[in-house]
Amino acid sequence: MAAAAPPPPPSEAHIFLPETTPPGDTLFTRIRLATAADVPHIHKLIHQMAVFERLTHLCEATPESLSATLFPPSAPPPFTSFTVLMLELSPAPFAPPAAADPHFTPILKPVHLDLPIDDSDRADFTSNAPDVLVHDVVIGGFVLFFPNYSTFLAKPGFYIEDIFVRECYRRKGLGRLLLTAVAAQAAKMGYGRVEWVVLDWNVNAIRFYEQMGAKILPEWRICRLTGDELQAFGRINLG
Amino acid sequence: MAAAAPPPPPSEAHIFLPETTPPGDTLFTRIRLATAADVPHIHKLIHQMAVFERLTHLCEATPESLSATLFPPSAPPPFTSFTVLMLELSPAPFAPPAAADPHFTPILKPVHLDLPIDDSDRADFTSNAPDVLVHDVVIGGFVLFFPNYSTFLAKPGFYIEDIFVRECYRRKGLGRLLLTAVAAQAAKMGYGRVEWVVLDWNVNAIRFYEQMGAKILPEWRICRLTGDELQAFGRINLG
Repeated sequence: MAAAAPPPPPSEAHIFLPETTPPGDTLFTRIRLATAADVPHIHKLIHQMAVFERLTHLCEATPESLSATLFPPSAPPPFTSFTVLMLELSPAPFAPPAAADPHFTPILKPVHLDLPIDDSDRADFTSNAPDVLVHDVVIGGFVLFFPNYSTFLAKPGFYIEDIFVRECYRRKGLGRLLLTAVAAQAAKMGYGRVEWVVLDWNVNAIRFYEQMGAKILPEWRICRLTGDELQAFGRINLG
Repeated sequence: MAAAAPPPPPSEAHIFLPETTPPGDTLFTRIRLATAADVPHIHKLIHQMAVFERLTHLCEATPESLSATLFPPSAPPPFTSFTVLMLELSPAPFAPPAAADPHFTPILKPVHLDLPIDDSDRADFTSNAPDVLVHDVVIGGFVLFFPNYSTFLAKPGFYIEDIFVRECYRRKGLGRLLLTAVAAQAAKMGYGRVEWVVLDWNVNAIRFYEQMGAKILPEWRICRLTGDELQAFGRINLG
């Protein structure tokens, strides 16, 4: 009977869960910028994504190579280059951000669950965030994106390379939340577009993206120069 | 009879044109990094591209918006963000680069012509490069690209947004030269891929790209969130 509960004092305004709601029915989510401490989890998530896409034979990423390329010693500010947001999940509310981050304020959202979730991999995905004191906070997914540019708009945008939610947490609106975080950031920065790609036979994904307001461009095809064919260009005499 | 000509002395090794070749048969090309001084030409080239694609109604770029987004006051180093290479054309050889540029050594290539080219727009495209002393050097095209990222490779790559050669200079290998410049730079930096998109009905372009070693990915479709649909995400309460 939430209507009968007394209103929380102002100092506890960040606690989303009224005491009358039974535990287990709400999953507290946080989306925050990734740090180098998240690399082991990012690597595991990329591996799970490769398994899901049956493309493990193409997955060469290691924690070391991800560290070197995503979190180099003199990393540019978030959103100006490769940027990763982590999705964290907790049975208890997250504390509000201690200090205003100049680049990104973590997004806190409670998600209501019909059934409790059995996360058998939770020991592998315990969050490494420094402000998390309990072991109940797990990584549920991530999104990796970076700026792109439209000459017609003369504006940057964002290109989403990967958006991934671990299997046991799917169909709860968490993928939508990650996509929304990127789109909201783009809109806030005055950017012109957010783009990503989808497989043409993945009709469920296409329907979902269209419901989010995206257009599918039917005529464009991706051209890719890679492997030996790309390396051969390094040997061409251009001097 | 080039074989009968005496070899040039070593100090003139940068002069590609033997004196026995009649003038007008060789077009000297240079590919160099763009600067803010190139914005008026970049803007005209983008407009020509929009006319060619019959998409002028979608082209919102102005010299001011291009300047602000491509050449901001504290621009990051070339290749780490949006990067433009200009294609310059001259009837006479370019001087070799005066000093080694730490980021990019201009590419000098002579191109042999079967017929002289009538460039009726040349007055609009006189190069603004500071080291060009004569008015005979014109801008012939450009390529705009920026880093992308593959999580499977854990490596950056380049995405080519635009590659454009003015109409009177087409079918002379200049588009290939611009694409080669980007691919060679990617290979040199140890990057994993160069990608771009092509319209599925543009069979000539597809054949050309395949000849250059690129694969066309038939199953992927681009998803784009833009305009009012994107701006709506800026008004979602995520706090």
